[in-house]
Amino acid sequence: MRSTAGGEIPKKITPSPDHENCNINSCLKQAGGLRTHGGSAASCGRFSLIMLPAYFDPIRARIVPALQRFLEDKKEELSRVNPMGPDAVQRLMEFSLRGKMIRGCLVHLGWSICNTSGKASVEQQLAVTAVGAAMELFQSGLLVHDDIMDKDPVRRGRPSVFSQYAEVADREGHADAQHVGHALGICAGDVAYFMAFELLATAGILPGELANLLALCAGELSAVGVAQMQDMMWGAGRSRAGVEDILRMYTYKTGRYSFSLPLLAGAIIAKAPADMKARLETFGESVGLLFQIRDDELGLFGTEAEIGKPVGSDVKEGKKTIIFASLMAATGPAERRRLGGIFGNPRASEVDIEYVRSVASSPKVRAQIDAITVGLGKKARAAIDGLPSGADEDRAAMAGLLEFTTARRH
Amino acid sequence: MRSTAGGEIPKKITPSPDHENCNINSCLKQAGGLRTHGGSAASCGRFSLIMLPAYFDPIRARIVPALQRFLEDKKEELSRVNPMGPDAVQRLMEFSLRGKMIRGCLVHLGWSICNTSGKASVEQQLAVTAVGAAMELFQSGLLVHDDIMDKDPVRRGRPSVFSQYAEVADREGHADAQHVGHALGICAGDVAYFMAFELLATAGILPGELANLLALCAGELSAVGVAQMQDMMWGAGRSRAGVEDILRMYTYKTGRYSFSLPLLAGAIIAKAPADMKARLETFGESVGLLFQIRDDELGLFGTEAEIGKPVGSDVKEGKKTIIFASLMAATGPAERRRLGGIFGNPRASEVDIEYVRSVASSPKVRAQIDAITVGLGKKARAAIDGLPSGADEDRAAMAGLLEFTTARRH
Repeated sequence: MRSTAGGEIPKKITPSPDHENCNINSCLKQAGGLRTHGGSAASCGRFSLIMLPAYFDPIRARIVPALQRFLEDKKEELSRVNPMGPDAVQRLMEFSLRGKMIRGCLVHLGWSICNTSGKASVEQQLAVTAVGAAMELFQSGLLVHDDIMDKDPVRRGRPSVFSQYAEVADREGHADAQHVGHALGICAGDVAYFMAFELLATAGILPGELANLLALCAGELSAVGVAQMQDMMWGAGRSRAGVEDILRMYTYKTGRYSFSLPLLAGAIIAKAPADMKARLETFGESVGLLFQIRDDELGLFGTEAEIGKPVGSDVKEGKKTIIFASLMAATGPAERRRLGGIFGNPRASEVDIEYVRSVASSPKVRAQIDAITVGLGKKARAAIDGLPSGADEDRAAMAGLLEFTTARRH
Repeated sequence: MRSTAGGEIPKKITPSPDHENCNINSCLKQAGGLRTHGGSAASCGRFSLIMLPAYFDPIRARIVPALQRFLEDKKEELSRVNPMGPDAVQRLMEFSLRGKMIRGCLVHLGWSICNTSGKASVEQQLAVTAVGAAMELFQSGLLVHDDIMDKDPVRRGRPSVFSQYAEVADREGHADAQHVGHALGICAGDVAYFMAFELLATAGILPGELANLLALCAGELSAVGVAQMQDMMWGAGRSRAGVEDILRMYTYKTGRYSFSLPLLAGAIIAKAPADMKARLETFGESVGLLFQIRDDELGLFGTEAEIGKPVGSDVKEGKKTIIFASLMAATGPAERRRLGGIFGNPRASEVDIEYVRSVASSPKVRAQIDAITVGLGKKARAAIDGLPSGADEDRAAMAGLLEFTTARRH
């Protein structure tokens, strides 16, 4: 799909082999979002990524110094507590700045598209940027905690925050350095959340809007927390999640939080009417689900070089993905029995994985997944079409985002 | 010290043996604060506690239903995500309601003493109660995370939240149930924070005050996080923290957060002038430090029956307490060498612990600690004396709080 409203056309980039742990999900996590062409960050190489318009570059260029200024002030303030305060803020700052800040940029997009007058005070522009910076700190907090849960030693190409602390604890002579690393990672994630909320408080949001914005952020983050709980509990457990269960989990763990929330935060600052907000919310949910579903497919049909982890690892870990649920829903008893012996079996062979691939490629399973993705694509497109026609550049950026999720083939 | 302003005089209660894991710190943690006489909660038995005035009982009686209503609404809302949502909120509700809610009550105290007109709208009273309820949710989040860090299987007389989840994960067939318990505990603590912030957003705080209140809470919580990091990193590590370092850690980990923060939150709602706020802040810091210091003494000089854990366990764990730092500061090289071989040695004998006790009882060490506690008591008392004379009942409650920290002997 081409962008329809005068924005830049999404382009492909050439893969390069220097991006570790890169599937679309970890790529998003590592990058804090999507890559743009023309951006300053290193390219994500393992996919032929269809890139977003350069729309996001100048926004990111404003978020970076805003985040740095806020965190430099926090470093000074927390140095009154102890030297670990500024040290933790420095680690969180480096971690946050390594992200591509798509969530932060989406605050601007949501605001810009709802700011139908086209006018904006300096104060309002600063507030939009500060709220974008807050989104990045929320994301950092979630990722720092995620890495502890997933036992992931690397994130965004560097040791994960808890791993950094485990190393420090080891140097300090702690016998149980790994546990101390986990504990300090928990604290660092907490501090990232708290700083994000403080950033909201000091963003210069008009008083009447702050309560709405705060309730929105806190409410969505609670939902992320319980969706993550479900994902962890399903994990390699015995429970059998259905297609609807998985879609709901994706909606709250990723879709709404990564896309709807920042768009709506911008819409609140622009005092957007309810119908505009509803369209942004729908768009965010749909695009978020498309991302996750495509991610699951890549995990099974990609190559290790492309996705940065062993192909079929989701299957071996027994992860409850949309493919897992679709297979269980669309197959007969004999196939289900064989699949049941493969999912969650860490010793599953290449023949086993190939069997999963073959069943997942069968027309009945494909039809089920395609029905979902086609429906989501239509919803997202209709949401864009329902937005004001004046904001061509913003709509083109949204179309580029949707293009990214639907057009990539590996 | 008697309360000087017509409030009830603090009383002693008789010890009973039914309170597990009870030292003053864990008592505070288990109770979410201090006991009151005349209160409905079970008495903390292992100490001859000097009780607070019944001042707090009617406040708690308002916070409980406010918290329940909010959390019941959240259960319904999060049931849209998955069944683990309402389940998590239920666990956090039960956990929070088992606390004595002193932090929540202190919001009312801070507000009441600053509300010099004596008048208050229904809306303002509801806001004070809701902010008090939010304080309890913040505390629940911190404790849920603390228990993971301290590997503590019990809290407030019941399995800690991560232990509950480890049990569920075990039932669900997870091979690594303990890790899943930790992961879900991290999420549950996060959700508690997010719900607390949402409660602030929906408390009905006047728009102009919300930003101040949010910045206050988020700022103090960041400081708690980095103070906790320091405490964990010192742990059994080799670093030698001095008296000032320890006092600073106590100030931010407990003093300001547990006492100054809720008092100041109330003061913000009452639009208190800066000098009133400064007195409440000083009072909170002083009382918080007195609590912690007394706690350290009890850990060495109490009996196992009194403190609910092996006497001297702080010493064996190498915890960096005020006693540790005072001993290191006030002794000569030979004593320091012997003490250095005892602190952090899990196999330290009863003779070793008795040696630590004897040095800690020596006049030079006592003089050092007494100088600190006497100074803190004076600061707290001066802060009370500087508050408006009209609010007799509020001042009496503050005096009772101070009395508790200075008069208890075990």
